[in-house]
Amino acid sequence: MSRNLSNHHDVIVFDSNETALEKARIHGMKTVNSIDQVAKETSTIITMLPGDVAINAVMEELIRHLREKSESSTIIDCSTISPTTSRYWNEVFHTEGHLYVDAPVSGGVKGAEHASLTFMVGVGHEDLVKNQNIRPILECMGSKVIPCGGPGAGSVIKLCNNLALATQMIGICEAMNLGTTLGVDPITLANVMNISTAKSWSCEMNNPHPAVAAMSNSPASMDYNGGFGTKLMLKDLRLATSAGSEVNVALPLGSTAKELYELANARGLGNKDFGVMLQYLSGK
Amino acid sequence: MSRNLSNHHDVIVFDSNETALEKARIHGMKTVNSIDQVAKETSTIITMLPGDVAINAVMEELIRHLREKSESSTIIDCSTISPTTSRYWNEVFHTEGHLYVDAPVSGGVKGAEHASLTFMVGVGHEDLVKNQNIRPILECMGSKVIPCGGPGAGSVIKLCNNLALATQMIGICEAMNLGTTLGVDPITLANVMNISTAKSWSCEMNNPHPAVAAMSNSPASMDYNGGFGTKLMLKDLRLATSAGSEVNVALPLGSTAKELYELANARGLGNKDFGVMLQYLSGK
Amino acid sequence: MSRNLSNHHDVIVFDSNETALEKARIHGMKTVNSIDQVAKETSTIITMLPGDVAINAVMEELIRHLREKSESSTIIDCSTISPTTSRYWNEVFHTEGHLYVDAPVSGGVKGAEHASLTFMVGVGHEDLVKNQNIRPILECMGSKVIPCGGPGAGSVIKLCNNLALATQMIGICEAMNLGTTLGVDPITLANVMNISTAKSWSCEMNNPHPAVAAMSNSPASMDYNGGFGTKLMLKDLRLATSAGSEVNVALPLGSTAKELYELANARGLGNKDFGVMLQYLSGK
Amino acid sequence: MSRNLSNHHDVIVFDSNETALEKARIHGMKTVNSIDQVAKETSTIITMLPGDVAINAVMEELIRHLREKSESSTIIDCSTISPTTSRYWNEVFHTEGHLYVDAPVSGGVKGAEHASLTFMVGVGHEDLVKNQNIRPILECMGSKVIPCGGPGAGSVIKLCNNLALATQMIGICEAMNLGTTLGVDPITLANVMNISTAKSWSCEMNNPHPAVAAMSNSPASMDYNGGFGTKLMLKDLRLATSAGSEVNVALPLGSTAKELYELANARGLGNKDFGVMLQYLSGK
Repeated sequence: MSRNLSNHHDVIVFDSNETALEKARIHGMKTVNSIDQVAKETSTIITMLPGDVAINAVMEELIRHLREKSESSTIIDCSTISPTTSRYWNEVFHTEGHLYVDAPVSGGVKGAEHASLTFMVGVGHEDLVKNQNIRPILECMGSKVIPCGGPGAGSVIKLCNNLALATQMIGICEAMNLGTTLGVDPITLANVMNISTAKSWSCEMNNPHPAVAAMSNSPASMDYNGGFGTKLMLKDLRLATSAGSEVNVALPLGSTAKELYELANARGLGNKDFGVMLQYLSGK
Repeated sequence: MSRNLSNHHDVIVFDSNETALEKARIHGMKTVNSIDQVAKETSTIITMLPGDVAINAVMEELIRHLREKSESSTIIDCSTISPTTSRYWNEVFHTEGHLYVDAPVSGGVKGAEHASLTFMVGVGHEDLVKNQNIRPILECMGSKVIPCGGPGAGSVIKLCNNLALATQMIGICEAMNLGTTLGVDPITLANVMNISTAKSWSCEMNNPHPAVAAMSNSPASMDYNGGFGTKLMLKDLRLATSAGSEVNVALPLGSTAKELYELANARGLGNKDFGVMLQYLSGK
Repeated sequence: MSRNLSNHHDVIVFDSNETALEKARIHGMKTVNSIDQVAKETSTIITMLPGDVAINAVMEELIRHLREKSESSTIIDCSTISPTTSRYWNEVFHTEGHLYVDAPVSGGVKGAEHASLTFMVGVGHEDLVKNQNIRPILECMGSKVIPCGGPGAGSVIKLCNNLALATQMIGICEAMNLGTTLGVDPITLANVMNISTAKSWSCEMNNPHPAVAAMSNSPASMDYNGGFGTKLMLKDLRLATSAGSEVNVALPLGSTAKELYELANARGLGNKDFGVMLQYLSGK
Repeated sequence: MSRNLSNHHDVIVFDSNETALEKARIHGMKTVNSIDQVAKETSTIITMLPGDVAINAVMEELIRHLREKSESSTIIDCSTISPTTSRYWNEVFHTEGHLYVDAPVSGGVKGAEHASLTFMVGVGHEDLVKNQNIRPILECMGSKVIPCGGPGAGSVIKLCNNLALATQMIGICEAMNLGTTLGVDPITLANVMNISTAKSWSCEMNNPHPAVAAMSNSPASMDYNGGFGTKLMLKDLRLATSAGSEVNVALPLGSTAKELYELANARGLGNKDFGVMLQYLSGK
């Protein structure tokens, strides 16, 4: 993402991981050693962090440093975190005269490399037009920039999409497992579902059955390597079910999906594409 | 279905329900009072029955009557039943020189009326070509005739599709419920999912949220009337989970989906479109 | 069971398995080669078969042979089968002047060996008194003979007990797994639950944690060998959930339990005590 | 609890709710208006708060005030909160020379009134002996004081017990619903389970079937009033499943139980005894 961004802008990189910094330098970007320096040298800050705990730590430090500046800053947070956390920081930064928008991504490692990510942005249409720098910056790294409504809406929609996605993938895994065990050809089964009401990205573009996946070179054809990892899906399902608990929304299927990915993860499949659930279900 | 068929063929109708027979007569079809008479007057028999018990009763009687004839018959069973039962009768009829194919349908009441049903047929491509009367007959009642492989494959694929479909619908219901409770606009949420990895028939064509459904006049916009009933989905999920038990295939998400439709049915929502799960989940 | 019975009665044994017959002869019992001979030589018949399919086959043959006799017979079926099947055969035999009672057992291999089985009998208190031969015969093989109500009630209560038992065991497995992962001593955890509201046979007598089980030499202390097998629990859960489907009763926890045992079985744990779920959940 | 404590000790009460303070005064206790005052006037502080958010707010304020005193304090937290939060505050207070122990209770409103609560205390046996004031103070309010191990162990065991308890209750609800729908007498069913492997507090002492509950005047006989509320069980299940997510422990049955209580709560049954699940499952 930073490489693609650096094709169009001067990028200053900070990461707690020295290897990441070195990689950035190799690609010609300037690196710094603290959040403080980031805050001093730019007023547009993009964050991509593993979760709520990291975001809270970084944002607490960032806002302290921003108080020493007179200038107003724009923080674009591309992390997938809890909507409650997104909204909290939006409020905090807003109160102090800054803009914080949640802008989680989908598209995976491939999308990040080819600048074809989708950004789900926690602003309305009009605000996206008004804040003229958000869209052009994100378009350096992605192909779709979607205004999702008010603060936190990007995080909400990201989690909702992945909640639905997980249930779709597991549903397709169960259907493929049942159908082939009952003697039906996997390609015929997938083809018929893809012209019927079960048509879905998980059946068509990322089918979990190796024989079907072979036709599109998707992860299941490469021992489930190279896709959207089980661990990442598990993280999103934890965020979604935890958001459900916060607002009294029952997620019976989502919770079952989460637990199945907990089981697959406990079994050592955390780094495999989330279609590996087919393998898990069949006892391998 | 019989009405559409009677536009191209002479149709003889039998039903244990006298009202159904009268309706057939009104539309100009000949009716008879027993399976025996059906067996005597035609060698191409189409059955559409509510489940395995009815199929077993009818087929047992039918095969007795067929033994009194020298001619070979073709039985096309459009019922949604257990693959085991489909295969059993295929075997029995085959042994006695007849052809029995499973050909369950999708497309609902609308598809039946407009001759736009999809038939999933338990024969291979070549057999469908060889048995020249199957496709033309089914095309009187539907727009798609799909060869699914050997005997029972039509039943298997029908159940697999609906198993996956149920998990997709409930997943979308949970996502719509969570997202809107967290303050996101339902139409924005559905739109973003429909250009993302959660895109599916349940989100796009049959969205369970009334505000989204209003744009396509789908069932959720009409108090969940007129679609694919919860009771019918429940029946298919019972068949699918029961088939899973027979062949030692775990269906953790499918079973949870089945139980949720059991609960909705116990609450009196059996005749509503299966998108009514959104309403059920929200406690209404 | 037959050995214990033969200590008090002349027993005639039939089994489709020749090894079983030989074993019976070694223990001094008379063996025969067909159901026909059983029907001819005795009017009290005890059956113990693996499931509904076997029961249907045997009872169909049995009733044919009984029609050739004038005498009324008593059939005591100790198999665990579907209540619907129990009731069907009760009705059939009753109509032809015989008595058929369902009398499934609990107590396992040990109980069978030591004549300490529990029989759940599908008759009322009064009928058990009236049919004077049932109790004494069952007491040759077990220590408890429980009248459960009318026909099929033995089967119903057996399934209900095991449905509840499965959820209790898995609940204890999850609690033991969570508690110990969070650093609590397994024995302390089990002890506190056993003086609290989670006290249960699965926590106290058959605790799934090896360290706790070591104190009572229960299966978990012997690599989950020698208890109530996962496959047997799975069979009972299939019967229970299938009975639920028949009468429109939702079993959301029971179905989840069933699917977990399907998964454990697919992983090759079918012959281990059903407490092996603790191991399964922890990814081993 | 404070009333029982005040029979043996001088109690100073603080609550953000004025009605609670007035009630305390009526019973002769001294009340104060701030946490500050509590910290000033005593060195043994007992907290009972609704959850993690409240505990964090109160403890942050409390520790600030304690810094102004030289004396070491003992904080006994009787709230049911996340083990992680218990451990965090134990560490924080310990570092500053105070003792913080988690001591969540079971026993309900009745136990609180009759000083018959059970306290699960996050200390080892030896520490309970060493910290001589903990046991006598808790015994003013309860009948059992159980040392559970190190810091947080009280919270862990409380959550594990209630996790197992919820699955037991729902399992019994499903068994009672299935058995009675299949025509078995509820009292016979409960009685047989209570002498079999499904025997449990939820079947014996708090049976969810009104006819069985009538024999022990438990909540199900009084329209599910007066027991352990669905909302409270839901809160504990949220804490347990969230703890599971934190340490990568799959809780498939616990999560399903949580979601069922979310559904019952959404349906307006939050204040009913958690045995009301039987009613929920049957569609009422």
